[in-house]
Amino acid sequence: MAENSVKKVVLAYSGGLDTSVILRWLQTERGAEVVTFTADLGQGEELEPARRKAEMFGVKEIFVEDLRETFVKDFVFPMFRANALYEGQYLLGTSIARPLIAQRQIEIAEAVGADAVAHGATGKGNDQVRFELAYYALKPDVKVVAPWREWNLTSRTKLLEFAEAHQIPIAKDKRGEAPFSVDANLLHSSSEGKILEDPAQAPDEIVYQRTISPEAAPDVVTEISIDFAQGDAVALNGVALSPATLLTRLNELGRDNGIGRLDLVENRFVGMKSRGVYETPGGTILLAAHRAIESITLDREAAHLKDSLMPRYAELIYNGFWFSPERRMLQALIDASQNSVTGRVRLKLYKGNVIVAGRESPNSLYSARMVTFEDDEGAYNQQDAAGFIKLNALRLRLGGAIGRRGGAL
Amino acid sequence: MAENSVKKVVLAYSGGLDTSVILRWLQTERGAEVVTFTADLGQGEELEPARRKAEMFGVKEIFVEDLRETFVKDFVFPMFRANALYEGQYLLGTSIARPLIAQRQIEIAEAVGADAVAHGATGKGNDQVRFELAYYALKPDVKVVAPWREWNLTSRTKLLEFAEAHQIPIAKDKRGEAPFSVDANLLHSSSEGKILEDPAQAPDEIVYQRTISPEAAPDVVTEISIDFAQGDAVALNGVALSPATLLTRLNELGRDNGIGRLDLVENRFVGMKSRGVYETPGGTILLAAHRAIESITLDREAAHLKDSLMPRYAELIYNGFWFSPERRMLQALIDASQNSVTGRVRLKLYKGNVIVAGRESPNSLYSARMVTFEDDEGAYNQQDAAGFIKLNALRLRLGGAIGRRGGAL
Amino acid sequence: MAENSVKKVVLAYSGGLDTSVILRWLQTERGAEVVTFTADLGQGEELEPARRKAEMFGVKEIFVEDLRETFVKDFVFPMFRANALYEGQYLLGTSIARPLIAQRQIEIAEAVGADAVAHGATGKGNDQVRFELAYYALKPDVKVVAPWREWNLTSRTKLLEFAEAHQIPIAKDKRGEAPFSVDANLLHSSSEGKILEDPAQAPDEIVYQRTISPEAAPDVVTEISIDFAQGDAVALNGVALSPATLLTRLNELGRDNGIGRLDLVENRFVGMKSRGVYETPGGTILLAAHRAIESITLDREAAHLKDSLMPRYAELIYNGFWFSPERRMLQALIDASQNSVTGRVRLKLYKGNVIVAGRESPNSLYSARMVTFEDDEGAYNQQDAAGFIKLNALRLRLGGAIGRRGGAL
Amino acid sequence: MAENSVKKVVLAYSGGLDTSVILRWLQTERGAEVVTFTADLGQGEELEPARRKAEMFGVKEIFVEDLRETFVKDFVFPMFRANALYEGQYLLGTSIARPLIAQRQIEIAEAVGADAVAHGATGKGNDQVRFELAYYALKPDVKVVAPWREWNLTSRTKLLEFAEAHQIPIAKDKRGEAPFSVDANLLHSSSEGKILEDPAQAPDEIVYQRTISPEAAPDVVTEISIDFAQGDAVALNGVALSPATLLTRLNELGRDNGIGRLDLVENRFVGMKSRGVYETPGGTILLAAHRAIESITLDREAAHLKDSLMPRYAELIYNGFWFSPERRMLQALIDASQNSVTGRVRLKLYKGNVIVAGRESPNSLYSARMVTFEDDEGAYNQQDAAGFIKLNALRLRLGGAIGRRGGAL
Repeated sequence: MAENSVKKVVLAYSGGLDTSVILRWLQTERGAEVVTFTADLGQGEELEPARRKAEMFGVKEIFVEDLRETFVKDFVFPMFRANALYEGQYLLGTSIARPLIAQRQIEIAEAVGADAVAHGATGKGNDQVRFELAYYALKPDVKVVAPWREWNLTSRTKLLEFAEAHQIPIAKDKRGEAPFSVDANLLHSSSEGKILEDPAQAPDEIVYQRTISPEAAPDVVTEISIDFAQGDAVALNGVALSPATLLTRLNELGRDNGIGRLDLVENRFVGMKSRGVYETPGGTILLAAHRAIESITLDREAAHLKDSLMPRYAELIYNGFWFSPERRMLQALIDASQNSVTGRVRLKLYKGNVIVAGRESPNSLYSARMVTFEDDEGAYNQQDAAGFIKLNALRLRLGGAIGRRGGAL
Repeated sequence: MAENSVKKVVLAYSGGLDTSVILRWLQTERGAEVVTFTADLGQGEELEPARRKAEMFGVKEIFVEDLRETFVKDFVFPMFRANALYEGQYLLGTSIARPLIAQRQIEIAEAVGADAVAHGATGKGNDQVRFELAYYALKPDVKVVAPWREWNLTSRTKLLEFAEAHQIPIAKDKRGEAPFSVDANLLHSSSEGKILEDPAQAPDEIVYQRTISPEAAPDVVTEISIDFAQGDAVALNGVALSPATLLTRLNELGRDNGIGRLDLVENRFVGMKSRGVYETPGGTILLAAHRAIESITLDREAAHLKDSLMPRYAELIYNGFWFSPERRMLQALIDASQNSVTGRVRLKLYKGNVIVAGRESPNSLYSARMVTFEDDEGAYNQQDAAGFIKLNALRLRLGGAIGRRGGAL
Repeated sequence: MAENSVKKVVLAYSGGLDTSVILRWLQTERGAEVVTFTADLGQGEELEPARRKAEMFGVKEIFVEDLRETFVKDFVFPMFRANALYEGQYLLGTSIARPLIAQRQIEIAEAVGADAVAHGATGKGNDQVRFELAYYALKPDVKVVAPWREWNLTSRTKLLEFAEAHQIPIAKDKRGEAPFSVDANLLHSSSEGKILEDPAQAPDEIVYQRTISPEAAPDVVTEISIDFAQGDAVALNGVALSPATLLTRLNELGRDNGIGRLDLVENRFVGMKSRGVYETPGGTILLAAHRAIESITLDREAAHLKDSLMPRYAELIYNGFWFSPERRMLQALIDASQNSVTGRVRLKLYKGNVIVAGRESPNSLYSARMVTFEDDEGAYNQQDAAGFIKLNALRLRLGGAIGRRGGAL
Repeated sequence: MAENSVKKVVLAYSGGLDTSVILRWLQTERGAEVVTFTADLGQGEELEPARRKAEMFGVKEIFVEDLRETFVKDFVFPMFRANALYEGQYLLGTSIARPLIAQRQIEIAEAVGADAVAHGATGKGNDQVRFELAYYALKPDVKVVAPWREWNLTSRTKLLEFAEAHQIPIAKDKRGEAPFSVDANLLHSSSEGKILEDPAQAPDEIVYQRTISPEAAPDVVTEISIDFAQGDAVALNGVALSPATLLTRLNELGRDNGIGRLDLVENRFVGMKSRGVYETPGGTILLAAHRAIESITLDREAAHLKDSLMPRYAELIYNGFWFSPERRMLQALIDASQNSVTGRVRLKLYKGNVIVAGRESPNSLYSARMVTFEDDEGAYNQQDAAGFIKLNALRLRLGGAIGRRGGAL
C-alpha cells in the first residue's frame, strides 16, 4: 500500500446509511472525487433514491443500472449448469453477484478515468475478497479502498456521529443497530450476524424476507413445467421468458410455497466459521429441475465428471475466483457438457418440497435405449454381464489370492 | 466358465417365489446340494416361512439370521460418515446391503464346505455386479451361479410352469406379474420397472410403501434431537439407542412426516439409465443431521476434502466395490476425519421437510472462536485481510499485466 | 451377439502373417467380403507389400493411407497438451494410435457399405478394448469381429497350419514364435510378452529397437530448441516443421542420445498387471519441453487444475475412451489452458537425459513480475505476507484452541 | 499483532551471519531473551560453532540437536509413500524440513516457557509460510517474530553495519553478497536467486553442490538394490540400514552418478513464480525405486487413487500445511495402501539415469496371476472380454444412437 492517495474512486453505492457514510468519508477524509455506481441486481430496492442522495452529496458522475438480465444470463445460469452447491448446500447467491458488481465498477473506472474503486464490505467477511480479487484480476494496477478495514469509525456510535456531522440523513430505524444484516439479489436473500450468531438456536421467523414458511404455504400442490435449452432454463409453463423474468417468476412460486430456506454454518475463505440464513426460492426450484433434465440427457461419465469437479467449482466462486483461469477452464468443461441438456421438466411445489413429476427430452438417453435396441437384442445381451463382472473382479481375485481378501489392505 | 458343475451352493434365499424357483432349479437342473441363507436386514418380512419352505424343499443346512445391527453399524453408518449420495441424490439403500449378504454367504460357504454361491439378481441390473464382486473379492476361487443369466425360464409363464411342475407354492397375488419390483431393507425401499418405466410420468401413490405423502403428513412440526459420537448417531431425543434401533425409530419419524421420497433417473454400472423410486425416511433425516453436526465440528479443508471425494466413494459403493482396496483407503481417510464429530443436532420434521433447528458440540470450531479470541484481538486483525487478499490476487494481477485480464485464457 | 453373420468387413490389415490369417479366415470361415485398411502411422514398415498381399487374397477394396500428420496433429499433440502419463510414467504410445485406426475403419465401413469391422488384437490385452470402444462409439450398430477371441486357432501350430492350408506366405523368421511382441508408431515402440514376462529381470538389449542405450550414446551434449505455439510444438532449432516431421526429428535426436526407454509393470484395463518395455524418444523430449514452456506461461492454479485431472485423462486414453464425452470435456478444459503456452525451450540431450537449459516466452508470467512491478512496490508488499499467513492459519489455530493441535484429527 | 512485546523467543539459529544478526536484533531491538535452536537435518555443516556463537551472544538456553533420523523416518519417508512431486517435478526437499524445525521450536518454547518463536525466512518466499503455519497449528497463541518482514535492515549494507555495531563476526566471504542462496538438508540442496533469476539461462556448473554432472560421472553402470517394507526403504544392497543412513548412502550414490538435478520454474504459494535449482540425488533414486515396488504390489485402483490425490498432497506440503487435518487425512489414505508394498528393487545408476532393472515381492500381484490361475482357466476367459467391452460401450452406443457419435458433446 505504498501510497494511499486516491484521486477518483468508483464506489459501489447502495444509497443506504453505510455506503453514504463511505461516500462522504472518501470525499472528506481521503479527498477523493467519488463516482457512484448503483445497480439493480434484483435486491428489491428502488434505485432512484440512491441517485438523489448521490446528487445531494455533490457527486458528478452517477451510474445507475439495471443489471438483472446480465446477472442471470451471464452469472447465475452458467453457475447452475454446474449444479453448484458450496459445502453441499449453499446456492452461492451472494458470491455470484459480487463479480458482476466489481466488473461494472472497473469498466466505469476505465471509462471515467478513475484510479480507484471502493466497496462497503467489512473486514471479516468473504465479500471483501470477492470484490477485490475481481478488481485486481480485471485491472491489475487499480487502487482499492476498503473503508471498513481502514477508517476509525469502529463503532456504531462513531458512525452515526460521522453521519450527523456530515449531513447524512439517518432513517429512524437505522438509529439502533439492525438485529441482523441482509444481502439480497435476484437469486437470494441472506441474513447473518447478531441474533443469528448462536448456531444452537433456530432463526426467528422474522429473519425470513423472501419466503413464507412451509407451514404457512398453501395446502395444495402447485404444478409447473420448466423448459431447458442447452443447459439453461428458457420457458416456464411453456411460455418463453427472459432469464431474469424466469427467475423472478420462480422466486414468486418458491416464495408462495415455502421453498428455498437454508440455515447453515459455513466455512469462510478468511478462516472462520459463520452462520447464515439463506432464502433461494427460485434457485432451489431451478437446481432440482436442472438435475432432472440432466438425468435423462447427460451421459453417465459426463455427469460423474461434472459432479466430481463441482465442489471445486463452487469453492472457487465462494472464494471469489470467478475471474480466474481455473474457473474459466472448469466452465469450459461444464459448458461443453450442456449441448444436449434440452427438454422439459415437470415439478410439484408443495410446502417446502420441490418434487420432480416428469422429465422428457428429444435427446433423452433413457428413451434411446427403448427405441433403438429393444427388439434386436444387439444392445444388451445378459451374457455380457458375466464377462463384465469377471473382468471387473479380476484384480480383486488376484488380491484375494495372495491373502488380501475383500480388498484388505 | 471352464466348468459348470457345482456341488454345494449357498443361496441367498428370501422364501419368495423367485428364489424358491431358483432353489429347486439348482437342485434339479444343476444337481447341486443347496444351502439357504435368509437374513433379516430390516426388509419387514417374516423369516420363519423361508425356513419352513427350505425344509420343505429338503434343504439340510438352513441359515436364518438377524443382521440388522451389523447392517447399520458396519455398513450404513460408515457410509453416512461420508455423506454419500450417488449422482447427487441417491442414498444407496440397495447398494449398501448387498456386500453384507454376500459376505455372510461366503462365510457360510467356507463353514459348510460349499464350492459355490448363488443369488437371484437379474442380468440387467446392478445387484448382480454387487453380489459377484463381493463374492470374488472374499473368495477368489468361488463358483458363482446367477440363474437369471443362465437358465431358460425366460418368461413369467415358463417360470410359473416350472414352479407348478416342482411343487412350489404360488401365492395368489403372484400369478400375475407385479406392477413393479421392490427391494427393501432397514435403510430404504426401492421400486422400479414396469409401470415406473416412463420417466415423464410421476409414480402413482401406490408405489410408496415406507412413507406417507407430504400432503398426508400431520400439519404440525415434530421436533427431535440426534446425538452423534465420532461421526455416528448414538441417541435420539437424548436416549441412547443401538444403531438399528435408532434407524428404525428415524424411519418411523420419517414415514409419519412424509420424508425421504426420491424419484430418480440414474445411471447403472452396466451401462444404461434406469428409473427408481426410493424411500429412505430415516436416512434422509440422518444425512441432514450428520451434515449439521459436521458443520460446526469439522475443519474447513477436512470437510472440503471429504466433499471432493464423496462422489467417488458413492460411485464405488453403487458399483459394488465395497470390498476393494480403494473403498477401504477412502474409508480410512473419512473415518480419520470423524473423531471430532460429536454433539447434538435438533431438527424439525414437517411434511417432507427436514429442517435443522440447532447444533451444539463440545468440539465446536464455531464457538471456539468466540470463547478464545474475541477479547484479545490476536486471532483476527482486519488488516490481515488486506494482505491475504493481496497475495491471493498476485497471480491474477500478473496475468492481467500481460494482457489476460479477468483470468482470460 | 444375436447373430454372427457378417457380409462385408473392414479389417485393420498390416500385411503380416497374423492379420493375413485373419483376412483369409474372415473370407473362408465367416464368408465375408473383406475390405483392407492399412495405415502408415510411422511404424516404419512399407505399406505396398500389404496392398499386394491383399490383392493376392482377392480383396477388391484396398485402402492404404499415410496418416502420420493426422496422427500427430489430432491425437498426439492434444494428448501432450495434458502432459499425460499413465501410472506416472507411460507416455501412452500404443493407446493413442488405436482411436485413429478405428475411426478410419468406421469411415471406410460407412463409405463402402460394410456392416462390420475386424481387428487383430488379442483377447487378454487393452487394444481390443480400445478398438472396440471406438468402433461402437462411432457407429453404434456396427458388428465387431475379434478373431483372436472367436476362432479355434488357439496355438501357433494351428495358425501356421491354417496359413499353409490357405496359401498364406510365411516368412522364414515367423516359423518360430517371436521372443516378444512389438507395436510401433511414430510416437513409440512397445515390446512385451515371452522373454519379457519376468519383471525381476531387466530386458535384454536386443529388445530395444528405437533407441541406442545411454551407454552407447555420444559423450557430448546435443543442444536443441523447440518452439511452441498455443501448446503445440511448431519448430525445431528455429525451423518450422509439420507435426509429423517435427516428431520424426525428435525421435532421431532421442534415439541417438539414448533417450526415452521405459521398463514398466502396468495395470491393464482388463484387470491384470503386465510388463511392457517402451521406447518413446521424441515424446520424452517433447514432454520435458512442454512442461518447461508451461512453467513460465501457465498460471499456477491453471497448472494445478490440469495436473490434478491428468491422471484421469491419461486413464481414459489408456482404457480406450478417446471417443467419449468425458474425454472431450477434459480436452475442452485442457485446450482452454493452452492459449498462452507459446515460446521457446532450449534443451540439452545427453546419454538418456533431457535437461532444460532455458525457456522464454512473450507470455511469460515470470518476467512479467520483473517488468511491471519491481519499481513501484505495488505488487508485493512484504507486510502482506503476514496477513496472508495469519488468515491461512486461522482455522488451524481454532482447531488447536480446542485441543486438536498440529491438525490432529 | 495487537502487541509486539516479546519476552522470550526460540530462534531457529544456524550460526551464520543472517541468523546471528537476527539473534542480536531480537536481544537489542526487541528486548527479548533469546533461546537458540540449532538442528542437524543433514545440511552438512558443523553445529558446534553455532553453539559457541550463541554462548558468545550471552544466550543461556542453547539447544543443539541431531534430527536426521527423525527427519527421514517421520517426514521424508511418509512423503515418499505418496510419490509426491510438486508441479510434476519437485521432490519437496525444502518444504518437508520446515515442519520438523517448527515442531521442535514449539516444543522447546513450551519447555522453556517462551512466548514467541522466530525464524530467518524472508518475506517473499514460501518458508515463512511453512514455519508460521506450523507454529500456529502447534501452539495457537504463540507469538511469531519474522525479522525480515519487520526490521529496517533492508539492504546488505545496513545488515553489515548492524553486524559490525554489535560485534557479530563477519566471514570474509560474506562481505559481498552471495551469487545465489542455498538451502540444504539430508534430502536435497536448493539454490535460487541472483545469478539464477533468468530462466532463459542454464545454471552455471558452480551452482551444483551435491552432485557431479552426468558428463563427469563414471562411464560404467553402478548396480544397487533397495529393499522396502510396508512402503519404506529398509535396506541397501541387502544390508539393513536406518532411515537416515540409507538416505545418506543413496545421496552418495546419486552424487557420484550425476543423479537428481532439476532446474525448475515453480509457482510459490505467495503468488509469484520463482526459479530454483534442486539437487536431490538420493531422493530421485528412492522415488524410482518406490514406484517400481508399488508397480507389482499395489492394486490398480489403489494406485490410481493415490496418483489422483498426489498433486493435492504435494501442494499441501509445498504450501506449508503438513500439520493440518487434510494432510493427516490424506496420509491415512496413503499409509493404508502401503501394507503390501514390500520387496526388492534392483536399479542401474548411470550418468544421471536411474534405470529399473528388476522388482520382486512376496506380495506381487504380478506373479500371483501366474501361480494361481494359469492352469485352471478360471481366472481369465477371453470370452469375458467381449462382455466387458460390450457393457463398457453401452452408454457410448446409446449416445451414438441419438446422434452424438464418438462421444460428441
